[in-house]
Amino acid sequence: MRGEPDAVRSGPASQQGMRRANLALVLGVIARAPRSRAEVAAETGLTRAAVSSLAEQLIAGGLVVEEGPAAPSGKVGRPGTALGLNPLGPGGLGAEIGVEHLGACVVDLSGEVRTWRRREVRNRGRRPAAVMADLAELLHAAVAEAGLRPAGLTLAVPGLVGTSGGVLQRAANLGWRDVPLAAELRPALRAAGAAELAELPVEADNEANLGGLAERWLGGGPEDFLYVSAEAGVGAAIVVGGRLLRGARGYAGEFGHVPVHPDGHRCACGAHGCLEQYAGEAAVLRAAGPAGARGDWVTLLAGRAGAGDEPALAVLAGAGSALGIAAAGAVNLLDPAEVVLGGGYARLAPWLLPAMRAELAARVTVRPWSDERLTVSRLGRRGPLLGAAVGVVRAVVADPGRLAGG
Amino acid sequence: MRGEPDAVRSGPASQQGMRRANLALVLGVIARAPRSRAEVAAETGLTRAAVSSLAEQLIAGGLVVEEGPAAPSGKVGRPGTALGLNPLGPGGLGAEIGVEHLGACVVDLSGEVRTWRRREVRNRGRRPAAVMADLAELLHAAVAEAGLRPAGLTLAVPGLVGTSGGVLQRAANLGWRDVPLAAELRPALRAAGAAELAELPVEADNEANLGGLAERWLGGGPEDFLYVSAEAGVGAAIVVGGRLLRGARGYAGEFGHVPVHPDGHRCACGAHGCLEQYAGEAAVLRAAGPAGARGDWVTLLAGRAGAGDEPALAVLAGAGSALGIAAAGAVNLLDPAEVVLGGGYARLAPWLLPAMRAELAARVTVRPWSDERLTVSRLGRRGPLLGAAVGVVRAVVADPGRLAGG
Repeated sequence: MRGEPDAVRSGPASQQGMRRANLALVLGVIARAPRSRAEVAAETGLTRAAVSSLAEQLIAGGLVVEEGPAAPSGKVGRPGTALGLNPLGPGGLGAEIGVEHLGACVVDLSGEVRTWRRREVRNRGRRPAAVMADLAELLHAAVAEAGLRPAGLTLAVPGLVGTSGGVLQRAANLGWRDVPLAAELRPALRAAGAAELAELPVEADNEANLGGLAERWLGGGPEDFLYVSAEAGVGAAIVVGGRLLRGARGYAGEFGHVPVHPDGHRCACGAHGCLEQYAGEAAVLRAAGPAGARGDWVTLLAGRAGAGDEPALAVLAGAGSALGIAAAGAVNLLDPAEVVLGGGYARLAPWLLPAMRAELAARVTVRPWSDERLTVSRLGRRGPLLGAAVGVVRAVVADPGRLAGG
Repeated sequence: MRGEPDAVRSGPASQQGMRRANLALVLGVIARAPRSRAEVAAETGLTRAAVSSLAEQLIAGGLVVEEGPAAPSGKVGRPGTALGLNPLGPGGLGAEIGVEHLGACVVDLSGEVRTWRRREVRNRGRRPAAVMADLAELLHAAVAEAGLRPAGLTLAVPGLVGTSGGVLQRAANLGWRDVPLAAELRPALRAAGAAELAELPVEADNEANLGGLAERWLGGGPEDFLYVSAEAGVGAAIVVGGRLLRGARGYAGEFGHVPVHPDGHRCACGAHGCLEQYAGEAAVLRAAGPAGARGDWVTLLAGRAGAGDEPALAVLAGAGSALGIAAAGAVNLLDPAEVVLGGGYARLAPWLLPAMRAELAARVTVRPWSDERLTVSRLGRRGPLLGAAVGVVRAVVADPGRLAGG
């Protein structure tokens, strides 16, 4: 409704806005599958002439290419040329700062992965500048290999970004506070010889948020779900109507600090009985001793559990139960269509699911809960980085006028 | 974006859609405060001629009236006549089925209360038909007194409606299951001599949802908040971006069954340690014995606590602590701008707040939590019925074409 007055007015500003919206409309149709101009016109309700002019602009902007004759549609007349996304068009660059690794990923306009690089690095306690130097090299190499020019860069980080505009406010597992991510990364990119990447728009988001978005975009997630994930910490993404619920200040999803045993173990956050104390690295450390701290705890725990190690199985049963209690509270509160185990939990799922299912069945009773609503992400630990890279190209498709001079 | 093609096409269907949207646009402006036609034109971007034609239709439909000369605007020229909402236009009829009472409320188009009726009735275990007979009489009397013709009727109920289309699926405190509310109410209205009310569109919603909406619409609630309320049961409404989060199947807000002490008291739902067992009627019954069951537990408890009764104060401190634990989990998950104590909790707030504040401060630590984000509803127990009635007129203002022949 709010958009209507623009459509009624006839000033140049409103025509420009309409053209920009129509560019997005046309590109959105082409992004779903290649179409002829006539098919685009039929699907959008735009005239054939308008579609031709908009397509011209998208082609000139490098977003769309002619793919050869469109498949015969059964209609009378010569089949048009199919328009498709330009496989060499602008790409999306994703970067991930993990506690035990760095990642870089380039996707093309269709969201297809073109390069994927991961490097194991112990980042805990390192200075941001040192981490950014390593990350810049990884990004430089990934982009060079992909042969695409990224339209933007999104960073997945294990901490709180909120609505701060790209400041990593707190990442307990890295030991970082108030790190201005873009300002730290840009000089590192220049030093690594990737000056063109230093000019890109940079965004940053919490890894669980990006994992949840990837689940929605690529993993077949429904419109409404709770995505629960573990990396260094425990987090969640709440997807409502296909969009991320970010909260009033951008801090939604702090699932790791939901109380599950209010009088239980003291958490690093100061509270008692947080989920993270039962379903995260802390639980492993407590059960396995400081040896658990070497390397990635998820890999470690999966290895031990796979070998039938009793303490590891006990830790995982306890983690599943704690996850089930916290998830039951969230389900009662939010009524998601699914709870999705993502990130490190996807790998640990075989050992988490039995206890988690039991708690959900026992605690979500007013409305029937069914086991199949608890699912495991196919994307697993790749989710956050995929979400970062794909988010960039989705933003291009949603508003191509920004790039194609709309 | 999706709306754009309509604006581009020029068929009659799209012109009708545009006129209907513009009717809403004009009425929305007038609903905020009386305006002259020229002011409406300036504010909406519509031409003066279009505004005059739309205003004519709104006047003919009984939604708008000429209020006399508009206040001088300081501009050159004769001041126009101010257009305002018709105080005798269609109203909103709200009804409430409580465990211990029935309620009826009529508001005018501006949301002003015209009649408010409440009757104490013990509805627990009564058959729906008997309750509906009492409610129909109350509604009949309320509408007759108000002298307004309602545009619709919304029922606030202490149970789950979900996306069932008006079936009260479960109301444990009434002992009702799968009650088709409109089908039960309509014959009762006819029998009460209110045949015209039996023809109204009837909607139904959970009392906490309607209380949360009332808080947003009338109580000064922010864009994002968690509204927590107690009547017979304990419920919540989650407001995100000014709108209710309903969940995948419409069951969001079952705050009463969030686990707070996972190994604690057994709940009527079958689970252990649900919030309702510590912050609802069950807690009172457990502490005070069956005597607590007589009459409304909130009133009873407030009375005893006000008189300094130690067991009552202990129950309330425990309830505040349990509420704080559950609210801390919800805040970590959702990051609302506020947590609002509504319904019966608003009345009990003086005794709940200290323990609740302490738990929130101890358990929401990663991001700073401040006491003033825990607030008490000014609407209190009037919220759900107000939300029911006001929702009807808000729907009229949002789409007057439905009534005014758009």
